[in-house]
Amino acid sequence: MKPAIDLPRLLAEIDALALHSETPPPAVTRLVFSPEDRAARATLNNLFDQAGLVVRTDAVGNTFARWPGTDPNRPAVATGSHIDAIPNAGKFDGVVGVLGPIEAIRALQAIGFQPAASIDIILFTSEEPTRFGLGCLGSRLLSGRLDPARADALADRNGKTLAAWRTEAGFSGDLASVRLPQGAYGAFVELHIEQGPLLERDGIAIGAVEKIAAPAALRVRLEGEGGHAGAVLMPDRRDASLGAAEVALAVERLVTSLGSPDGVGTSGVFTIRPGAINSVPFEAVLEIDLRDTDHAARQAVEEALRREVEAIATRRKLRFSIETINSDPPALADPGLVSAIEASAAEEGVSCRRMISRAYHDSLFMALLAPITMIFIPCRNGYSHRPDEHTAPEALRDGVAVLARTLARLAS
Amino acid sequence: MKPAIDLPRLLAEIDALALHSETPPPAVTRLVFSPEDRAARATLNNLFDQAGLVVRTDAVGNTFARWPGTDPNRPAVATGSHIDAIPNAGKFDGVVGVLGPIEAIRALQAIGFQPAASIDIILFTSEEPTRFGLGCLGSRLLSGRLDPARADALADRNGKTLAAWRTEAGFSGDLASVRLPQGAYGAFVELHIEQGPLLERDGIAIGAVEKIAAPAALRVRLEGEGGHAGAVLMPDRRDASLGAAEVALAVERLVTSLGSPDGVGTSGVFTIRPGAINSVPFEAVLEIDLRDTDHAARQAVEEALRREVEAIATRRKLRFSIETINSDPPALADPGLVSAIEASAAEEGVSCRRMISRAYHDSLFMALLAPITMIFIPCRNGYSHRPDEHTAPEALRDGVAVLARTLARLAS
Repeated sequence: MKPAIDLPRLLAEIDALALHSETPPPAVTRLVFSPEDRAARATLNNLFDQAGLVVRTDAVGNTFARWPGTDPNRPAVATGSHIDAIPNAGKFDGVVGVLGPIEAIRALQAIGFQPAASIDIILFTSEEPTRFGLGCLGSRLLSGRLDPARADALADRNGKTLAAWRTEAGFSGDLASVRLPQGAYGAFVELHIEQGPLLERDGIAIGAVEKIAAPAALRVRLEGEGGHAGAVLMPDRRDASLGAAEVALAVERLVTSLGSPDGVGTSGVFTIRPGAINSVPFEAVLEIDLRDTDHAARQAVEEALRREVEAIATRRKLRFSIETINSDPPALADPGLVSAIEASAAEEGVSCRRMISRAYHDSLFMALLAPITMIFIPCRNGYSHRPDEHTAPEALRDGVAVLARTLARLAS
Repeated sequence: MKPAIDLPRLLAEIDALALHSETPPPAVTRLVFSPEDRAARATLNNLFDQAGLVVRTDAVGNTFARWPGTDPNRPAVATGSHIDAIPNAGKFDGVVGVLGPIEAIRALQAIGFQPAASIDIILFTSEEPTRFGLGCLGSRLLSGRLDPARADALADRNGKTLAAWRTEAGFSGDLASVRLPQGAYGAFVELHIEQGPLLERDGIAIGAVEKIAAPAALRVRLEGEGGHAGAVLMPDRRDASLGAAEVALAVERLVTSLGSPDGVGTSGVFTIRPGAINSVPFEAVLEIDLRDTDHAARQAVEEALRREVEAIATRRKLRFSIETINSDPPALADPGLVSAIEASAAEEGVSCRRMISRAYHDSLFMALLAPITMIFIPCRNGYSHRPDEHTAPEALRDGVAVLARTLARLAS
């Protein structure tokens, strides 16, 4: 068998989906439950229908598009990813793992393949943490890793809850119904751009993911005292923003000194109040992302950071709080699935390398439900989460072809 | 003479004006040309009319309410302040210097005083830099310190210009017509809360301002490279936010080491892009306010800061720019006017002390046109630019009474 990939059709679909964006091309901004997200979901539902897939949507908006198998006793095989995008992102992150599988299924249908096990494409809700401050909402709920009541109470910056947002977007029902039983899937394989430079640098077509780094996210809030920037003398100040500046620099220093070579730490959110040039900032909030393939090293960084925040706050006479947004263990891929990707790549005649995912994905949580792995494809310069994120058409074709062969192998 | 101050009326007017706010009491948020600012201006115009004052408005919205004097050959005496308020400010900053003079004039009218020189209350447009990034717009234009074409091109964060804003608010005509000739006023005396703790701490009723500190404001922009927070390894990063954190801390360090004991430095604006927890910040913008009563010390801080920004940007491989928003010399008060305040306070039977203004005011620019001074009154804990800004009713009464006596003295 050789799946009949229609690359121009897939590229056109990627371009079309990118137009559902708050920002003009090439930038993509698509927050979960925004009008753009809802329009993109409608586009995908059309494509699912045209491919003859049976669509189910759960209470948080996770969407399952099934190609029914001939053997109802076989657990289904799943693939999928997300379509939400952070502000000023690119058009490939996540999307490749949703539109790619549709093309993979069409390519298998075109050569007359009939799956024994059903094949599901899962569109996960809110992989990005932009709106609710917590990533992988859909897959956390599917895997039981997030309490449904806590999830519904998650609020955006304006205080609007997930419960309100999902109702407005047309997804109703009890969030507790989202959770899937262990064994619901026999395998989960996510296609994704690498979001790093290694495959491109070494000219490798396919990455077979063995491990996903352990992510943690903290929200540090510092409170001091405001006042007029001209009138409050320096010794009398309790400037929350300067405390936050020290914390952000401590993140960098601690990750570099205590993390593994794969460890990273980022203070990607840094907001201060009142945020006026002539006022001393009385409040600062940092959102800090820590990741490491070495779980113990990440925990050491996190513990040192907590001590450092306390020391900074004490020295600067600031009140502080540290909220754990999430703290997850790393995920190990299933060796049999990794081998399946390698075998599929060999059949397709493209190079393949085992690798680690430093970014995390819905696969991290699907690993709690089923054996998982991921198929990585190169992206230019390793760029992601920016408008110039790019994957070459041939790299995309190779990734979809290897995914199609892997799904066929697992569902036969 | 003893001016007949109606304190309850004045307090009620202050409370009423505070309701023209985007934020609920006690917070006041009133950006120039907002619906709230325009409503507050309408309220003031009514009060001016009721007091029999003759109102003129110029092309930028500066408003002049005149109590005509009996001697047309005498230059007018002026007082006044602003009513715009930064986000989450209080109800006294600026407002005391506009509503206070109305009450002072009514109190003089009530005892039958007739001024020889006309007395103007000036409502200055946009003393706060919130909307256009530059403070004292109205008084800069009045004094010729700001080029009219540059002023009209000043834009808010959405790119909307002063030209567009003032037209929308109903203020039209050439900005060049705003400038007043030298000698337009014989004196300018601004009533204001101290915005510092000294008068309250020492139980002094009135501050007679001898000098206003020299302010400067810089906008520092740092640009690095974005990317996914999980995927870009630490040695490969060019995080603009961490550069900005170092700059903010350098401001504190340099002001403390190189400034005079009155020197202050504040990074009141700290914005980063894209501002998502899982993205490396690719851009950071700081707005930095530097002030000192010692002009040379402030310039030394500014020069050292410029070198520091360049060093930080070079070390972190960031592009950078430093824009001078404003850089003004200190203003000296007129000794005769300072003495007039002291004499008025003595007549009123309240304590008075000469002092320095570390905050700057429209008086800084009126000093380019006329002899100036300011009357300071205590405010609780020195708090200003925050919702709990407070001035005791009796302190307010003393300030308005001393202002009334001073205006009468100057206009007789």
